[in-house]
Amino acid sequence: MTDHEAAAPSDPTGGRPVVPSRGRLRPLGLGEITLGPGFWGRRQETNASATLRHCEEWMERLGWLANFDRVAEGTTGPDRPGWCFSDSEVYKLLEALCWEYGRTGRPEVDEAVRRLTDRVGRAQDDDGYLNTCYGHAGRPPRYGDLETGHELYCTGHLLQAAVARLRTTGPDALVEIARRAADHVCDTFGADGVQGLCGHPEIEAALVELGRALGEERYVEQARIFLERRGHGTLRGDRVPLGSPYFQDDVPVRSAHAWRGHAVRALYLSAAAVDVAAEYDDRELLAAVEGQWEHTVARRTHVTGGMGSRHQDEGFGEDWELPPDRAYCESCAGIASVMVSWRLYLATGDVRYADLIERTFFNVVAAAPSADGRAFFYANPLHQRVAAAGAPDPGAVSPRAESGVRAPWFDVSCCPTNIARTLATWHAYAAGVGEGGLTLLQYATARITADLGGGRVLGVEVETGYPYDGLVTVRVTDPPPGVAVLRMRVPSWAGDAVLEEGGRHRRVEPGLAVVDREFAAGEEIRLRLPMEPRFTWPDPRIDAVRGCVAVERGPLVYCAESVDLPTGVDLDGVLVDTSVPPVERDGRVLVRGLAGAGTDRGGTWPYGGRAEAGDGGAIAAGFTLSPYHQWAERGPTAMRVWLPVASYHLPDSSCPTAFTT
Amino acid sequence: MTDHEAAAPSDPTGGRPVVPSRGRLRPLGLGEITLGPGFWGRRQETNASATLRHCEEWMERLGWLANFDRVAEGTTGPDRPGWCFSDSEVYKLLEALCWEYGRTGRPEVDEAVRRLTDRVGRAQDDDGYLNTCYGHAGRPPRYGDLETGHELYCTGHLLQAAVARLRTTGPDALVEIARRAADHVCDTFGADGVQGLCGHPEIEAALVELGRALGEERYVEQARIFLERRGHGTLRGDRVPLGSPYFQDDVPVRSAHAWRGHAVRALYLSAAAVDVAAEYDDRELLAAVEGQWEHTVARRTHVTGGMGSRHQDEGFGEDWELPPDRAYCESCAGIASVMVSWRLYLATGDVRYADLIERTFFNVVAAAPSADGRAFFYANPLHQRVAAAGAPDPGAVSPRAESGVRAPWFDVSCCPTNIARTLATWHAYAAGVGEGGLTLLQYATARITADLGGGRVLGVEVETGYPYDGLVTVRVTDPPPGVAVLRMRVPSWAGDAVLEEGGRHRRVEPGLAVVDREFAAGEEIRLRLPMEPRFTWPDPRIDAVRGCVAVERGPLVYCAESVDLPTGVDLDGVLVDTSVPPVERDGRVLVRGLAGAGTDRGGTWPYGGRAEAGDGGAIAAGFTLSPYHQWAERGPTAMRVWLPVASYHLPDSSCPTAFTT
Repeated sequence: MTDHEAAAPSDPTGGRPVVPSRGRLRPLGLGEITLGPGFWGRRQETNASATLRHCEEWMERLGWLANFDRVAEGTTGPDRPGWCFSDSEVYKLLEALCWEYGRTGRPEVDEAVRRLTDRVGRAQDDDGYLNTCYGHAGRPPRYGDLETGHELYCTGHLLQAAVARLRTTGPDALVEIARRAADHVCDTFGADGVQGLCGHPEIEAALVELGRALGEERYVEQARIFLERRGHGTLRGDRVPLGSPYFQDDVPVRSAHAWRGHAVRALYLSAAAVDVAAEYDDRELLAAVEGQWEHTVARRTHVTGGMGSRHQDEGFGEDWELPPDRAYCESCAGIASVMVSWRLYLATGDVRYADLIERTFFNVVAAAPSADGRAFFYANPLHQRVAAAGAPDPGAVSPRAESGVRAPWFDVSCCPTNIARTLATWHAYAAGVGEGGLTLLQYATARITADLGGGRVLGVEVETGYPYDGLVTVRVTDPPPGVAVLRMRVPSWAGDAVLEEGGRHRRVEPGLAVVDREFAAGEEIRLRLPMEPRFTWPDPRIDAVRGCVAVERGPLVYCAESVDLPTGVDLDGVLVDTSVPPVERDGRVLVRGLAGAGTDRGGTWPYGGRAEAGDGGAIAAGFTLSPYHQWAERGPTAMRVWLPVASYHLPDSSCPTAFTT
Repeated sequence: MTDHEAAAPSDPTGGRPVVPSRGRLRPLGLGEITLGPGFWGRRQETNASATLRHCEEWMERLGWLANFDRVAEGTTGPDRPGWCFSDSEVYKLLEALCWEYGRTGRPEVDEAVRRLTDRVGRAQDDDGYLNTCYGHAGRPPRYGDLETGHELYCTGHLLQAAVARLRTTGPDALVEIARRAADHVCDTFGADGVQGLCGHPEIEAALVELGRALGEERYVEQARIFLERRGHGTLRGDRVPLGSPYFQDDVPVRSAHAWRGHAVRALYLSAAAVDVAAEYDDRELLAAVEGQWEHTVARRTHVTGGMGSRHQDEGFGEDWELPPDRAYCESCAGIASVMVSWRLYLATGDVRYADLIERTFFNVVAAAPSADGRAFFYANPLHQRVAAAGAPDPGAVSPRAESGVRAPWFDVSCCPTNIARTLATWHAYAAGVGEGGLTLLQYATARITADLGGGRVLGVEVETGYPYDGLVTVRVTDPPPGVAVLRMRVPSWAGDAVLEEGGRHRRVEPGLAVVDREFAAGEEIRLRLPMEPRFTWPDPRIDAVRGCVAVERGPLVYCAESVDLPTGVDLDGVLVDTSVPPVERDGRVLVRGLAGAGTDRGGTWPYGGRAEAGDGGAIAAGFTLSPYHQWAERGPTAMRVWLPVASYHLPDSSCPTAFTT
């Protein structure tokens, strides 16, 4: 097989990251949708023009790419640069490049895929094993540390890259490398093989997807074996500081009631569980993950959609443990959350999963990269108490970006390449096909030509200024013969949405606005979502934000930044007057605030008696809030999403009451 | 010198842990005070009868003691049990035993000292180096990892043990071992030696004290050198995950404005800084530590006196970062905080340091050990969301006690021996001598015979049911000729204290109640401290406890435990009605509460609009609170110190107002 033969796309819809064998909806193919300019279109272009190259350059510079050459040349040794999981960053970049080439067909992207594939392939052992950290001269042996060695995790990302290549371009050298690696994993860890599993889930979802893409049931079965093996103390819990729950080996995934431990691990595992449930029609397993999603979203998720409350283990906390200042909300956990919700949506058609995806896209995934696509947040806290002293050295590796400034690269650099592969496929999450029509889930200017099956096609153009504007116009360009269904998601926060179609205006409730009839070419369907800014109250059991409100507008969470406060006003002392509704101005939001209520009174003990009325000495002022995803774009700032409510602190206001959903 | 010759006490006052060369007060000698039965007397007895033996047995069982034998026998190798700092636990136990023998003269305690001294001494190298982890066959070399190796830290604790022996019994083999070890440190790390320092401060304070006890100025000077060397990036910050601030090597101690990084490290370092300031009359250095104390106590200290807000690095957080659920408040940090405050008190005579000592003793140090002295908390959070599943296996080592149950021993087991040495010397902190008289700082039933100098003695008997009862009776048993001064600390929380003396009752303000006159044998002076339970409001900038109150009574912080709630009431949903004052009942406190306000309404998203009035559905109930130091004594419970205030959540109450000191 020559390279040119391999260049024929294997998926007529243009490829999709996730293609379950069964489910309520089928995902839209990447060939069925093209984003226009707008919020996500711009990010996708920045990803293509800056981030992909940025990632390759950093990995070249740090020697993570040369690690593959050293294996090929037989020059490995104890001085290998990078963590044991650095290979996975190369694979995630490869995956991003493959999707990007599928999206645009730009030859330089294809060249990059071939260049990296070549270097990776030369490092593969004869038996299919491929890892630059283990199993070669001067390196630890293969599979000697399943708990923290990340070998199968790396292999999983290699497989995902191959899936992207296969579905966009067709079988080639990368796919062949992945097939040999997958065979090696099955040979080694099969039902009769080593009874082990990887401390970091990833191989499971990857095996399912490669199995789907290649029609290799053995791979899918191996994923099922790994999944069922987990949760029985198979791994040595004493190898990690916080024991088995850290890597979800304490309770089988089908028995757990909530996500716990390391957030990315928990979410990758659950994504794989939905995949396995789909392939084996395992409804108990699907229901288990749905229950975990429900519990975790209700009690362990930040208002941004961010997951992870603890820095210590990059993990979930207990129910209601949602500190804004120490929120971890790792960028990768946001991506992993989207992965789980997307699979659950495809399996169930329940639009609440798409609601969470939207929230997470706008307030976690979009927050991580800088506008130029060359710096990233690793953690996405909801409160930065002290502004960082300055921007990080653009030429230096950051240990972790926990200081409120985006960094060009990290010591553990999982986020940049994860963001790259996600942005390259953002449009895959925009719509679903099935049940007689097209369902628009995420709003962006785009052209869509959906194959409804049976030779019927529905073509539309979507035009919108979303998320800053609430009008979404769908122009029918290519109606199918006869009746078809167009569904548009009405977000859960959109209480007064209006649908205009067929000359009528009607109010539509959160959920799905449905148009079920014959369509005419050129006709327009308009969804108007209410974009007034709103105060959002937390459940009273979330101790860390008691007495505070957040401000949201459309799908965006807003935040106060120190740079926007009047001179001399400290973010620690700001209160918000919730009796005055917030108003939008130029994409930002104005609230009536009170400053100075918390200024230092010079005491040496911060606990004492109740003050008399009038102690506050507060002055009224207006504050401007910015979309959270933009924070620190103007330089390091102190920042807070949750704003203390004035009526809790000042006696002459009416009392706030309990929150209700 | 024979062992028997060595048994003569070298300090006529019976020894003291800290003896500065200059300062406003001199510490009371341990021979000048004997505790009677009561809160601390009982704990001191439990320490003597149970904890000391418990610690020795565990270290024998785990091989931490045998590590010394293996060095002596030349059988060291790669399989050494215990962390690199396990030697320090042996030394802290030795220190506790030395103080305990000084206190009671029980021969079996002296035997334990000699037994351990003998095993330790055999492991000392010819040049004075003594460490079982480094520098012998099959072990890493000496001083190859100053950042995390803890070698000088271990040596420091050896020196402290020798100080205890020297001041209670006199020079002996242990003192000789320590002298040789100290000489080795000075030879190696002196002004012209290796320009290094230890990643964990401890050697500094130890060198000062051994220098004081032996009159060796060289040791004091070495402490000063270590202190001044720190804060200039001398250690490799990249050897620890969070960099130089973790071990206070980012900013010199005399330039820092607050405590930061690892709490125990920061506090041990500052204790040494006060020691060095005292020896060199370095007022700038003293003022720096006073400023750090002030800033940290005002903004980074929990209401229990506990320090440390982060699990990730066992460290301080930013200003106002005081989460009750993730409060670390390590037991050792409580002890270290007492060490700093005690030195600052001796240097300045400022009674606010004794106030914090009291708070920390009752609500951190007393909370750590179980009533039987055989189990311990490592961390002392102020909120346990979920009760532990059960008590830990009494025969198993706990990784860290973070689950709300006291554990018999830890993997990192710094706390048990630290508590042992602190309880053995608790009475050393009870009073100070100087400026013409005796100052009573901590209240416990005790007999005191204070040497006022110039051949004058003041003898008193203190009788009290403190902290449960507010009456402290001081009976003069041995008045000095002429005028003398008796001072009694009036705690900062005691707004209505009354002093009865000489037939008069007078109100005394927080600070010091002073009686400055001639005393008669048999006369009684009575201090009546107000013991009504009280609500305590937090500074509004402490985000994590906004809208909550704590309940205190006397020096004790109280807490609600799930075991005391009516059946079916969830600790998550409890509110307190602050319009009804709390009342004492049998040493516990009753508050009027409301239950059910936060019960689950089944929503899947915990953020939303403001509820209408009347949504609470709360029912009134009374709740019993227990002293925080007793929590989980009746088995694992959910627990909280900070209780949400009903008027914040229910619209028909008056609004709470801002807090004032």
